[in-house]
Formats: sequence, structure tokens, C-alpha cells
Amino acid sequence: MKSELKGNVVVGQSGGPTAVINQSLVGVVEELHKHECFGKCLGAIHGVRGIVDEQFVDLKQIAPDDLEAIARTPAAALGSSRDKPDEDYCNRIFEVFRKNDVRYFFYNGGNDSANTAHIVNEVAQQAGYDLKVFHVPKTIDNDLRVTDHCPGYGTAATFVTHAVIGDDFDNRSLKGIKVDIVMGRDAGWLAASSMLAKREDDDGPHLIYVPERPVTMEQFVGDISDVYDRLGRCVVVVSEGIRDVDGVIWTKKISQDLEADAHGNVQLSGTGALADFLTSKVKENMKGVRMRADTFGYLQRSFPALISPVDAREARLCGSQAVYQAAGAIDSGSICMQRFGKGDRYRVETFVSALASVAAETKPLLDEYINDAGNYVTPSFYDYVAPLVGPLPKVGYIRK
Amino acid sequence: MKSELKGNVVVGQSGGPTAVINQSLVGVVEELHKHECFGKCLGAIHGVRGIVDEQFVDLKQIAPDDLEAIARTPAAALGSSRDKPDEDYCNRIFEVFRKNDVRYFFYNGGNDSANTAHIVNEVAQQAGYDLKVFHVPKTIDNDLRVTDHCPGYGTAATFVTHAVIGDDFDNRSLKGIKVDIVMGRDAGWLAASSMLAKREDDDGPHLIYVPERPVTMEQFVGDISDVYDRLGRCVVVVSEGIRDVDGVIWTKKISQDLEADAHGNVQLSGTGALADFLTSKVKENMKGVRMRADTFGYLQRSFPALISPVDAREARLCGSQAVYQAAGAIDSGSICMQRFGKGDRYRVETFVSALASVAAETKPLLDEYINDAGNYVTPSFYDYVAPLVGPLPKVGYIRK
Repeated sequence: MKSELKGNVVVGQSGGPTAVINQSLVGVVEELHKHECFGKCLGAIHGVRGIVDEQFVDLKQIAPDDLEAIARTPAAALGSSRDKPDEDYCNRIFEVFRKNDVRYFFYNGGNDSANTAHIVNEVAQQAGYDLKVFHVPKTIDNDLRVTDHCPGYGTAATFVTHAVIGDDFDNRSLKGIKVDIVMGRDAGWLAASSMLAKREDDDGPHLIYVPERPVTMEQFVGDISDVYDRLGRCVVVVSEGIRDVDGVIWTKKISQDLEADAHGNVQLSGTGALADFLTSKVKENMKGVRMRADTFGYLQRSFPALISPVDAREARLCGSQAVYQAAGAIDSGSICMQRFGKGDRYRVETFVSALASVAAETKPLLDEYINDAGNYVTPSFYDYVAPLVGPLPKVGYIRK
Repeated sequence: MKSELKGNVVVGQSGGPTAVINQSLVGVVEELHKHECFGKCLGAIHGVRGIVDEQFVDLKQIAPDDLEAIARTPAAALGSSRDKPDEDYCNRIFEVFRKNDVRYFFYNGGNDSANTAHIVNEVAQQAGYDLKVFHVPKTIDNDLRVTDHCPGYGTAATFVTHAVIGDDFDNRSLKGIKVDIVMGRDAGWLAASSMLAKREDDDGPHLIYVPERPVTMEQFVGDISDVYDRLGRCVVVVSEGIRDVDGVIWTKKISQDLEADAHGNVQLSGTGALADFLTSKVKENMKGVRMRADTFGYLQRSFPALISPVDAREARLCGSQAVYQAAGAIDSGSICMQRFGKGDRYRVETFVSALASVAAETKPLLDEYINDAGNYVTPSFYDYVAPLVGPLPKVGYIRK
């Protein structure tokens, strides 16, 4: 137990940014001011890269008003990194910590970041160096283990829901088939959230496909054709990680030269290839039908001014709780959220889970939230996702 | 002069929807209630298609609260149409009008819709049938002649600006080159509006390309390379109608099998082909640089809950003014806006222009708003566009 530990702090942000990732950063900085054990707060520029290069800014010097403005701003204010540190990289991080009397490390990111925090923690332990290491969760993919949900997800889900609501009205105006590609390499949580756009019986999305349920092109086209026959139109939400029944993602099948980042994650967002491929396949089977596709892309994680208030509050909470726990009896861990109550009674409490329990592996969209046909979510998913998103627009229809 | 004319009304919506097109519809319906010359208000389902098929809803029966909800809702509540009526089609429209004692026709759309209104008006005149015909402007492209600007543009510009603000922060987080494709087949007004996202010197967009200024691939790649050398990153906004110096749009060069609609407009939105093509070209010249692209797609015209208040008010005004003028001494025309004052003193007044003056032809982004290099807008464009958009997010930076 290192509760009497005094020393400097390093805080970093990692991986794909979210629109509320700076809420967590500001939560960390605010809480640091309340405890005497913390020295300087070194903000690492571009995550682990900034640590090994000793590129820091002193975050305790930022005025409260400026901190609030930063909290409202999408994407990692310190800069992010896609580096995935191996053991050697983690040793270099540790050496910088030792050199700068860093005794506290708060790392805000996804499962890869939790893994980095875990390795750095082990290196310090092996060296007999007192260091407290906390992972603060973040991902629009919502695929971290242990925690009920992840900061960043609720705001991304709010954007996707708004986008599909508007897009569904557009599709009512000029009828046809519309495919919307939503982020989510391996997990369908974000695509699933689009179910909130459906408020009337004939609203879209009419179909939702997630990576957890492989689908043949025949089923995909057949499902769309069925909806089109019934409504004269069809709005389809598709996770970018949609895959065939042989387990190979469609995007991989389309193109052999997809760029891979250092984590081995294939880069899917920002490419129109999947959208164009799926529309061409549907067109082959439904000639003469108006057919459009959009890839929502990076706006899903960076769109400002449409932040979910619940998500912003929880992201701030996870940051401040990491510091609060570090000032107390716990030496390391990942901040997790547990939910209590449904609907208006929804609230969360945080707890600390071992770094290893969150590191590396991810959590798919649960089976109970996917319908038997594998082309939509179950009603129970509404209870899960609705409390996490911001207010939805109140709309009106002219019934014909 | 047909000011004593009494009879039924047909109102229709046409072309690509906007997020405030229903404000104009509600402006029409509200104003109709104030004048005794108007009989039933027949809303045409899917524009001219609904007229020839005699598919109408009675809009005077809708309760005020429901009308307000419809006004707030993106995309044509009556349904829209891409049909471009020829003389024969217009004759059929006229026959339906005569059969149903329709004496007033309000058509909300772009330059094609103004042209339809113009032809129908001439057919009625030739037949000696008293009919008043008004065009209510609408287009996110902002490319109608005579009027200072078009309802729908301000809200689309608000979305694009928000999107680029968020995207620019994302690009600061994970540095590289980002290309954002914005709607605008022949006019760069919407792409130009992204200049509002640039508030600090190093903010994006760093480059803006519009169809009015053809560009070679060498210049395009060279411009990006220059910005990247200076800032270590580059955010580029590109109109979907970007074209080569031979006048051929890049999208046409990429693909020979682009779908054309009945207006002969090539369908560019919703395809990732241009984004993928441009990124591949940049990649060839800047190996190893992180390179991403998004196509903002249909969200630009349909995103709810981020409506420009000025745009909503003006769209409503154009609808109500069409009816007000029809109840008076004027027989036909297109409602146009003239602006007075700058900044906080901005206001508009409407006037009526001849249908033929707005029909068919469009208005490109003015020369005075494009810089000499053809890769950005001039400062004077700020004064033009800023009053039209909604509030922008207040953001904060950590300076490194």
C-alpha cells in the first residue's frame, strides 16, 4: 500500500479520441488540486510517445475557465497516439518516470491503453519502484470489459441517433434504399444505438447489422428486399466490421491493400469502399431502385455541440475517481461504472477493477441484445442505451 | 391582375430536401389561414408526381402544435420528387388544377422547381385560366439566382462548420492529412462555409477547393504538402464537384458508370469514390503520412437539432411571403431575399422576382469570395456567411 506516496503525476490520452475524452482529463486535473500527495501534473503530448520523448505540459497551471473550455472540446487536447508499447517501450516509459520522480500515472484510453498501463505497472513493481497506475476508460466502441459502459459511447450514440433520425426523414422524402455505415470494427454497440432513432412503427432504421452476427450477402439483400416490398423504402445501419459467415469482414474481402495501424487494427473508417460495395450488391438484385449510402466516419467521435450530458458527467467522474482512488489505499486499476435503476432512476457508481481484467480483450455486444434473425436489436437494448444519450429532437409527420 | 381570385391551393416540395424546408411549408399554411381568397390547401404528395396522380392531403386540417413539430423536422414532410416536368407533364399538372379549381400553386424547391412553376404558369396563361404561381426558394447549395441566399443553406453551413471544427480537433489529436468531401455539384457555397471553422491561426480547414476553380492534381497535392510541412497536419475541404483544369469533374474521371437522375445531374453524394481517389493520389506523393477522408453525405441536408435559427426564420418567412404576395396584386414570381446591414445588424427583406429570372440557371460562388490561388476563400466571405449560421461551439486548446 502506497497511500503515503508523494511525487509527480503523468496523465496521457490514447487511441481514437471521443467528444468527451477531455472531460476525463479535466476530471483528473481538478481532483489533483484537492490532494497534497500530488506534485506537478505533467500532461504527456501525444500519449506514450510524449512520455518517452519527455514532451510534457504542466496542467496545474491552466486556469479553471480554460479547463472548462477544454472539457467541452472534442478530441484529445493533449494529443493522442496509436503506439502500442511493447516491453522495451514500457521500460523507456518507466525510466522517464523514475528520472522525473513520477509516482502517479493516469492513462485515458481503451483496452490497449489499459494493457500499456498494466505492463508499466508490472515493470515498476519488478524494479521495486513505488508507482500508482490507473486506467481511465474511453471508447466510442463501448467494448471495454468489466465496466457497464464506456465514456464516449453515449455521445457517439447521440450523434448516430440524430444522424439516422434525419436520414430516415430524408429517405421518406425521396424513397429508396439507404445504407449507413457506423463505426465499430469488432463490436456492434454503436450501430445498435441507432435503434433509438425508431420511434414510430415505420421509422428507420429498419435493419441493423453488427459484427457479432455474420451474415451472408444473400440474407443481407433478402432482408432489404423484404422491407422495401413492405414500406417502399429501407434504411439500413451497418457496422463497419460487418462480416461474412466465414468470419471474414466484408471490407477485407473488398480490398487487399487496406492500411493497418501499429495495433494490427485494419483502418475501416473514412473509406467509402464498404458503402460502395454494399450498394452495388443490392443494386444487382434490385434494379431501378434508388440506392444511396453514407459512411458517418470521424464525425461520430468528434462532433461538437451535441454532447450527451450524462456521458460528459460520467467521463468527468471517471477521471476524478481515478485520482481520488490513487490518493487513497488502492495502488492500481481501471475505473469502471456500475449502473443502478432504469429510465429516470438511472445512476452509476464507480469501482476499481484490476488493470489486467480490462487490458487487451474486448466485450462484444451481448447476445441478449441481438434478435434471432441477426438483423436488429432486442427491445431490452433500449433500456441499456436510452439513459446514456442526450435529448432527441421532437419531430412531426404528415401522414399520407 | 387576379387579386380577387378565389379558389383552392396546391403546395408542393421538390428536389433534395433541406433541414428547414418544412418551415417554408408551415409558413405557407399559416399565412393561408389569414386570407379569405384561399379555399382548400392541397399538399401534393411527392411534389409534381403527387399532383398528376392527384395524391393530396388537406393541410388546413393540421393543428397548430402539429404544424410546429413538422416545421422543426428535417426533409420534405409531404415527400419530394426528382421528376423534371416537360411541357406535356406540365399540361397534365394544369389539367389537375383545372379539374380541382386550383387557383394558387406554391412550389418549394430549387432552380428546376422554379422552371416547373414557370412552365405551368405559361400553360395556364395560354389556356386563359386564372392561376397564381409562386416559387419558394430552397437549396443547401445556395445557388439560386437573384436572391442573396437560399433557405436551407444556413443550416447546412452550420452542420458543415461544426463537423469541420470537430474534425480539426480530431486531426490535432492524431496528426495527418484529412480530406472532407462537402456537397456542391456545381457551386462551392457550402464548402466555402467551412471557413467559419477556422478561428485560430492554425485551425483547419487549411485548404478549400470549389468547383468554380478547377485544379490540377499537382496543385492539389502540392498545396497539401506545403501545409503539412508547416503544421505537421492538414485538413482539406473539397466540394464534391471539384474538377480538373480541363473542366471535367474528378468524380467523372474516376468512374464511368455513375448513376444519373432524370435531371441529368450526376449523383455524387453518398459515394466514397472521390474521397478514396483523392486520398490515394495524395498517398502516392506523401508516403507514410496518416491519411483519412470523410464524405459528409446526406447528413448535411438532414441533420436535426442543429438548425440555424436565422435560416429557420427566413425559410418560414419565404413561405408566408409567397402567400401574402399571392393574396395581393402580384400574379407570379419567386420569393427572394435582400440583405441589409452587417454582423449584428444583419436583416433581410423579401421581394418578388420573375419566375424566369430564377428558373433553370444557377449562381456560382462569386469570384470575389475565392482567393487568387484558388485554394481558399477571401475574408469578405466571412461577412456574407457568418450571419446565416447558428451558434458555434466554444472550445479550448492546450498549447504545447
